[in-house]
Amino acid sequence: MKQKNIPSITINRLSVYHRCLEKIAETEKEKDLKIISSFKIAEMTGINSAQIRKDLAYFGEFGKRGVGYPLIDLSRELKKILGLDKKWSVIIAGAGNLGKALARYKGFQKKGFIIKGIFDNDPSKIGKRFGQIFIYDIKEMEKFIQTENINIGVLVVPADSAQEMADKMVRGGIKAILNFAPVHIILPSGIKIHNVDLSIEFEGLTYYLS
Amino acid sequence: MKQKNIPSITINRLSVYHRCLEKIAETEKEKDLKIISSFKIAEMTGINSAQIRKDLAYFGEFGKRGVGYPLIDLSRELKKILGLDKKWSVIIAGAGNLGKALARYKGFQKKGFIIKGIFDNDPSKIGKRFGQIFIYDIKEMEKFIQTENINIGVLVVPADSAQEMADKMVRGGIKAILNFAPVHIILPSGIKIHNVDLSIEFEGLTYYLS
Repeated sequence: MKQKNIPSITINRLSVYHRCLEKIAETEKEKDLKIISSFKIAEMTGINSAQIRKDLAYFGEFGKRGVGYPLIDLSRELKKILGLDKKWSVIIAGAGNLGKALARYKGFQKKGFIIKGIFDNDPSKIGKRFGQIFIYDIKEMEKFIQTENINIGVLVVPADSAQEMADKMVRGGIKAILNFAPVHIILPSGIKIHNVDLSIEFEGLTYYLS
Repeated sequence: MKQKNIPSITINRLSVYHRCLEKIAETEKEKDLKIISSFKIAEMTGINSAQIRKDLAYFGEFGKRGVGYPLIDLSRELKKILGLDKKWSVIIAGAGNLGKALARYKGFQKKGFIIKGIFDNDPSKIGKRFGQIFIYDIKEMEKFIQTENINIGVLVVPADSAQEMADKMVRGGIKAILNFAPVHIILPSGIKIHNVDLSIEFEGLTYYLS
C-alpha cells in the first residue's frame, strides 16, 4: 500500500482526515454513519473535496464514485498508512517540568507512544523514578536508544543544548525527533523533525476575544 | 473590518495562512518576496487556492486579481483579524509539572500571551513563586480574574476537577479556555474552548517511521 514520494503536505492532510473520521466515530448521533463522502470531510476539515479525493487516491481505491467512503475501513486504512496502528518507543531528553509533564501525559500511551526513559545530566535527578519511568544519565542515552530500539526522541532541553542532544539521538539511531526547544535544529537528511510551538494552541481563541 | 458569522473553520484557516506568511517572512531566500499569490499559499498550506481567495475576501479586498497579495500588509491584517496584534492576560489553573512548564514557556510571552498567575489548592504550593509568577489559592481565582481583567484560562488540572475549575473561570468572567485535561468540558454558549491533544504532535512523524 505504501507509495514513494508522497508530499509531506499530503501526509499532514491524511492526519487531518484521520482525526476527522475518529471524531465522527466518537460523536453519538453520527455513530451509525457507515458511508462518508468527501464533501462531508471537506465540510468538517475545510479542505477542498477534490483535494481530499486526490489525496486518498494516492493510496488506492477506497471509495465508490458518487457514494463515498466506508467510514470504518477508511479510518483503519489511514491509521495504518500513518503508522498509528502500532506501538512506538519514545525517550525524552530533559527532566525539567515539561519533560516530567510529558512523561506523565496519559494521552501518549493511549495512542501507542510508550515513554521508555527520561535522560538528564543533573546528578540530583539521575536514578530517580517518575511513575514507572526512570531518569537516566544523558551519557547512557545513545546506548539505550540502540539496545531498547527507540524510534522517537523528544527534546525538552534548554535551547543551547538542543542541537547537541539531537546529534546524540541521531548517533544512537533515532529517525524522528519531536522538538519543544525554541531553536532550529540541523539534522542529516533522512531524519524527520517536528517543531512544536505551544502558542499556536492559543491562536484559535483570540479571534473570538477581539 | 471584523464581520459577523465567519465560520470557525475559516478562522482556523486564517491562522494557517498567517503562520505560512510568517514562515515566508522568516525564510532567508524569500525575505524579499513582496507579493504572494494564493497559489503559493496553496502550495505551502495544502489548502485549495480558490478556497484561500474566498476566505480572504471575507475581510475585504486584499489582493489584486492575477497578481497576488502584498505580503507584509496581508500578514499584518491577518494578525489583526486573529487578535494576535495585542497582549492577552492568561491564568493557569493547576501548578503541576505541566502548569509550571507552561508558566515558564518562553514562546507565550513572545506572542503576546502574558501569564499573570497560577492557581492551585495545594497549601504547600500556594504562596510560592515560579520565576516572576506567583502560585495563588484556587479560592482567589474568580476575584483575580475580575480585578486583573484576565482574558484566557488554561486548564492543567486532573480530569476530575476540570469541569469545576472551568465553571469557576467562567464565573470570574473568562471568555476563552485552553484545556489540557483529557475530558469533555461543558460550557455556556459564548465561551470558547480549545482542547489540546499533545499526541497529535507525534502523528506527523510516524508515517516516516512505518
